[in-house]
Amino acid sequence: MKRFDIFGTLKKDMDVIEKELYRSVEGDSPELTETSLHLLRAGGKRLRPVFVLMGGKFGSYDIEKLKHVAVPLELIHSASLVHDDVIDDASTRRGKPTVKAKWDNRIAMYTGDYIYGKALDLTTRLKQPEIHQILAKAMVEMSIGEMEQIRDFFNVSQDVRRYLLRIRRKTSLLIAISCQLGALAADADRRIAASLYRFGYNVGMAFQIQDDLLDLCGSEKQIGKPPGSDMRQGNITLPVIYALEDPERREPLLKELDRIHAMNGQCDVSEAVKLVTSSSGIARSEALADRYITKALDALSDLPDIKTRKQLKDIAHFITKRSY
Amino acid sequence: MKRFDIFGTLKKDMDVIEKELYRSVEGDSPELTETSLHLLRAGGKRLRPVFVLMGGKFGSYDIEKLKHVAVPLELIHSASLVHDDVIDDASTRRGKPTVKAKWDNRIAMYTGDYIYGKALDLTTRLKQPEIHQILAKAMVEMSIGEMEQIRDFFNVSQDVRRYLLRIRRKTSLLIAISCQLGALAADADRRIAASLYRFGYNVGMAFQIQDDLLDLCGSEKQIGKPPGSDMRQGNITLPVIYALEDPERREPLLKELDRIHAMNGQCDVSEAVKLVTSSSGIARSEALADRYITKALDALSDLPDIKTRKQLKDIAHFITKRSY
Repeated sequence: MKRFDIFGTLKKDMDVIEKELYRSVEGDSPELTETSLHLLRAGGKRLRPVFVLMGGKFGSYDIEKLKHVAVPLELIHSASLVHDDVIDDASTRRGKPTVKAKWDNRIAMYTGDYIYGKALDLTTRLKQPEIHQILAKAMVEMSIGEMEQIRDFFNVSQDVRRYLLRIRRKTSLLIAISCQLGALAADADRRIAASLYRFGYNVGMAFQIQDDLLDLCGSEKQIGKPPGSDMRQGNITLPVIYALEDPERREPLLKELDRIHAMNGQCDVSEAVKLVTSSSGIARSEALADRYITKALDALSDLPDIKTRKQLKDIAHFITKRSY
Repeated sequence: MKRFDIFGTLKKDMDVIEKELYRSVEGDSPELTETSLHLLRAGGKRLRPVFVLMGGKFGSYDIEKLKHVAVPLELIHSASLVHDDVIDDASTRRGKPTVKAKWDNRIAMYTGDYIYGKALDLTTRLKQPEIHQILAKAMVEMSIGEMEQIRDFFNVSQDVRRYLLRIRRKTSLLIAISCQLGALAADADRRIAASLYRFGYNVGMAFQIQDDLLDLCGSEKQIGKPPGSDMRQGNITLPVIYALEDPERREPLLKELDRIHAMNGQCDVSEAVKLVTSSSGIARSEALADRYITKALDALSDLPDIKTRKQLKDIAHFITKRSY
């Protein structure tokens, strides 16, 4: 999904957000400004700010107010990425070296802490305590999600429910509150904010499942790294859980995962990838992603019929437009 | 300084804080609850909560309100400690294994993120946006201080000013706002809150200098680790900076620091410790700590003459009561 493909009408305001984003991490520490800007400039879809602005369209849209929600949300997302890269021992993100690779783990950790702090500092400019509360709770949930992911590395007996709970915390929650807080910051009706939350939550779930599918089914060119990097790292995603339920795939796949675990991921994973992609796990995962998209579209039906509603619908459809 | 030596009158309320502290990190993640409680139960002086409560005595003291400031401040301090232990590669803190030693670096990182999130979540229960702002800014400053510390590892050409700026961010600021926010949460006069900030700031500076002196002059039993661990780690503290200004010590000390750096701290540092402790650096550092204490006492003179003012004076004196 390219950044402005479907967000043309928001382009001008997204430029404001982009500038604010850079400005927000500038300060009296040249080192932290440099590492933070390195991370932010590497790009990204800016999905969370886009959803904030779209949420704002359902109330009294004011970019000067909305930016105080959009920027912190993207910062919280970015901070979690720097900390993730330390955990995942990732050397590139978005085609550029990660902070931990270009500098080191310690610097990546404090860069994350700094960006979290800046996010909160910005939020305090908004005079709506409810928004602070929702953001603080989301930060807690995200760190729980990250911890669950570590805990579940190479856990081959986890069930679908556990996977869904984890991606809910790790991904969907922040997307859900992006939609919701945009509406709240624009003083939209609370029922509208609740429907937008529901939309964002379901889109987020579909989005993460799709992302996990892409890691297995995409080409190296498409995903910027060799397929199967989740498994290499021990991250057991939905297609793998489903593949393990496939009686013909279960034993060989368990054996492969065991070997990858024993080799600490420093080995060829193409056999494991083939076992999953040739199983029913792909179609079953796609079906579940589609079900979340249906729920997301359903949430939209409660919203007033403005242009933004149509655009949200397009985004939902776009997520499940599979290119592999 | 034992925890309740001089805080007898606050004991009952400090017990409330202690319970709230434990309760604050309990939640739906058994792993994060366990790692966070491990850290909190290892103890500590609870200096920040004590200062919050004492600050509260200058206004309408209400423990139910003050705890929403005291607990987050101790949590922010604790979160910074877990992240520090990852950086410092520390295996024990307060005589117990660190989170990173008992679990691992990744878990220590997410434990820190979780505790930061919980701190902010608690703060949002206070309906004073000014307090949120001050806390968010403190978090940013602290992460800058931590980064400066890494940047300045083994930097033997740093001057006293740079050291002071660093400990200001790393230590004094949080102690200063503990005093200030206690007063603000108790609706004390703003000038009183400002004087308390000044007291806390100066006490914090003296406290950190004293702590840095203890690392060089204390016995292994007193400090719980062999003397000189700051130098081993590359942390160039005030007595070392002063010792480097001593023409007789400069060359041999530079040579020792070079060797420690080259050996990554995995060597005997007793010669370097001896060079510093036999220099004028100790007396000069003590003199500077004493000057900060004088400034702290000076800030107290603007405060109403209540019992707490006398207790704050006792704390200030206690800090420079040297036992080495």
